[in-house]
Parts: sequence; C-alpha cells; structure tokens
Amino acid sequence: MAPVIILNAPQLAENIGAVARVMANFGLADLRLVNPRDGWPQERAWALASGAEWPLNDAQVFDSVADAIADLQLVFATTARPRELQLPILTPRAAAGELFEASGRGERIGLLFGGERAGLETADIALCQAVVTIPIDPRFRSLNLAQAVAINVYEWRTRVADAPPAIFREHSPTADGAAMLGLFEHLERELDAAGFFHPPDKRPSMVQNLRSALGKGRMSEQEVRTFRGVVTALSRGRGRVLAKLAAQKADKVKAGEAE
Amino acid sequence: MAPVIILNAPQLAENIGAVARVMANFGLADLRLVNPRDGWPQERAWALASGAEWPLNDAQVFDSVADAIADLQLVFATTARPRELQLPILTPRAAAGELFEASGRGERIGLLFGGERAGLETADIALCQAVVTIPIDPRFRSLNLAQAVAINVYEWRTRVADAPPAIFREHSPTADGAAMLGLFEHLERELDAAGFFHPPDKRPSMVQNLRSALGKGRMSEQEVRTFRGVVTALSRGRGRVLAKLAAQKADKVKAGEAE
Repeated sequence: MAPVIILNAPQLAENIGAVARVMANFGLADLRLVNPRDGWPQERAWALASGAEWPLNDAQVFDSVADAIADLQLVFATTARPRELQLPILTPRAAAGELFEASGRGERIGLLFGGERAGLETADIALCQAVVTIPIDPRFRSLNLAQAVAINVYEWRTRVADAPPAIFREHSPTADGAAMLGLFEHLERELDAAGFFHPPDKRPSMVQNLRSALGKGRMSEQEVRTFRGVVTALSRGRGRVLAKLAAQKADKVKAGEAE
Repeated sequence: MAPVIILNAPQLAENIGAVARVMANFGLADLRLVNPRDGWPQERAWALASGAEWPLNDAQVFDSVADAIADLQLVFATTARPRELQLPILTPRAAAGELFEASGRGERIGLLFGGERAGLETADIALCQAVVTIPIDPRFRSLNLAQAVAINVYEWRTRVADAPPAIFREHSPTADGAAMLGLFEHLERELDAAGFFHPPDKRPSMVQNLRSALGKGRMSEQEVRTFRGVVTALSRGRGRVLAKLAAQKADKVKAGEAE
C-alpha cells in the first residue's frame, strides 16, 4: 500500500541507513537502490539505521531506474530543480494526496530520489508521472537525501492518518513502468527506423519529451495495448508505403529497361 | 519572524550540524543550544552543515531551558511521548499554524527539542505552551533529531508560503518566558512558605502541573503583573492573618497573665 522508496545512485551508505530509519519511522519498508556507488550491502548503512534493519535487509538493487520502477504504476520524482519536461510539479503534500488515491485504487506507487550530488537525470525523471518539489529556501538548496525522504514520507503518513474510510472504485488497471517502457521503446524503435530523430544529437531530449508526454497521462494497461497497436499499424503502414514506393521504382526501372 | 530552534542537551555535534543545514533549507537562522554534551563550538557540527554555517556561527549557548526561552512568547516542545501534563497536543502542521499566527502578531516564537537519548524532561515541557507530536509509527519511534527539526521547519515554511497577506491585529503583548518564570517562582516561593507542597516528594510534579496550567493560557504582560499582584496580596494577606493570630495569641497570653 505505502510507496516504494527508490534511491538512484546514492553515494553514502550512511544516507541509505538514515533513509531506512525514517522510512521505518513513518511505516514504510520497501527500499530499492539503483547503482549504489559503493556497492551493496554496506555495513555503515546498518550502523546508521538505529535498528531499522528491515528496509535494508530487504532492499533490492537494480541497474537502472527503468528496471527499478518496472512494476510500479505511479512514480513521482523528487527534485528541487525546475526541469525542461512538461510534467506536473507537486508539493510533497499534493503528491502524498495523489499517491494515497492511487494506492486506494490498488496501484503500486513509488517515490524516486536522486543521488547526493548529481540528483536525477532528465531521462529518469521522464519515466515518472510528476515531479515533487520541496518548498526550499532558494538561498540554500542543499537538502540532505534522508531529509528529502523524511518530508515526503511524513506527508504520506499524515495523509493516511487523515484519511476517511476508503471507498472502493472500479477502474481499469493502470499500466506499470515496464508496460510504459515497452511502449516507449517500441515507439522509439519505429521512429528511429523512420528517421524521425533529427538532428541525431537532439534524440535524447526528444525521447524524454515524448516519454514524459505519454507517461504523465497515466495510461491504463488497455490504453498501452491500444497505443502499441497504433505504433505497429503506423510503422507497418510506413513499411507498406516503402514497399509500394520500392515496387513502383522497380516497375519504373523495369519499364525503363523495357523502353 | 521565524521560530527559534532550541536544542536541549544535544549529544552529537553531527546532529547539531544537520539541524543547522535543514534550518537553512527552510529559511531559519536562530539556533540555541542548552548544555551541549561535548561543549561548544564543535568542529564536527560545521563539517555536517554542508555550508549552512550561519546558524552555527551565531548559535547561543544556555545553561537551562528556562534561560534559553526567556525572551520568547510562544514555545512548543516537540516530543513523541505522551506526558502527564495537561498541555494541548498539536500536529506539526497545527503547530506551524499557531506559530505563524503568533509571529504575525509580532511575538517571538520557538520550538524546543530534546537530546537524542533522554528527550525532554517534564519540567522543561512544563515551560512550553503546547506539545508537538510527530505522527510516527509506534512500532519504530526512534526519530533522528535533525529529522524531527526538518519536519517542523518544513511545516513552518509551507505555512508561510500558503499564507494570505497578513492582517495586523491590535493586541496586548504576550508575556515572555522570563516573565512567566518570574511569576512561577514567585508563586512557588509563597506556596513553599505556606507549606502548600505536601508531601515534599510530590513538589516537582505539583510545580510542573501549576506551571503548565498557568503557562498554556498564554498570559499577556499585563496579566502576569496582575497575577504577581494576586500572589503578593494573598501571601501578604496570609502574613497579616498570621500576624493577627499571633497578636490574638499574645493578647490571650497577656490576658491569661493578667487574670
């Protein structure tokens, strides 16, 4: 029910331990690590957790953000910096509200945090459905990783505590990260084949904009299937057009030869 | 305008540094330390502040909570434990709201935090006007000191950001901590003289209950003067009654002698 906490490229094991501790303070347990700098496990994380060992013992390690969120249906990226992506920007309070609603619909939810120095790459943010921005003093933006987690999980727990009894709503299941990534990669493969990404050095930002534009709408599994059908249909169509053009050319050549 | 952060008997310089950092994150600067275990200044605090040096450079050190809050007019004690005192219990959000209103009236405000192990003594909580309790999972209550500060100062900043333009309200100035302590000690001196605290081993808890009962009503300076007059009048009255009784006894003795 509670959000998964995903730390992308965390540098200090101490901070991972402090994150586990504050997760336990607010009733969260599911921790995922993407490429922790010093490997995993790290003894210092346990030392800093003050006994909150279970999020560390059960922590899963991944090679990419895409893998880490593959089974999640709603993921918000926590970052202080304004980004070029056209994603909704939420306060931690609003984010907790949206996550809570999604959780009430049975969705698997998560919060993504960047490493201590580098923060989050735009490509990873583009896999999320919104950005959470903590209302920090612009004169001193260097917020500790565990503090950023603390504020978000505190808001989550406050939202849970304030909640009226849940009302079950029928809905079509929301697509998870793996389904969305499948759609993105399918689309991008076909766009590559079509020569869409031009000039080539703009490809990464074009891909990010496409992904965030498609992802933030929160497609259902059915919608993802529909869109993949759309991509297939369009690309086969292009294939047919190319085949037809090729056939026409061949015909012309043949006709020329015949002339 | 923003609350003063008061750390009572902090043990680890690292935590003091982390507190300074998160204060800077949310626009606070005024830090007070009561009996830091390892003395002050401590180099490790600066190392952990990640550049948020000004709260540390300007930190004031005190020998008692009473001294540290002497000039403040509204102070909340942050503690997870339910206490025997009859003080209002506030969420961090409600506390930020009350502090913000008080600040808008021009009052000097503060948040008091206990040390890492011991927390706060009831005697120190009794000097505050309410208790702030963070909604923590009862299964894992060990919240890091800097995290407790983070959540409260985050709520403060969120409250400030959400605020409509302030409306100035006329008011009589609220008594500060020194004025309240003066009243408490005056009253207790007179109660000692009157043999009120009985049995003697109950004195500390009786004092705490009196202090919190008087303090949570948030007296104005004028009300404190009035109450000190009340205490004086009552104790002088007792003095007069005693003098009268003594005089009567003397008269009786004299009369007996005369008979």
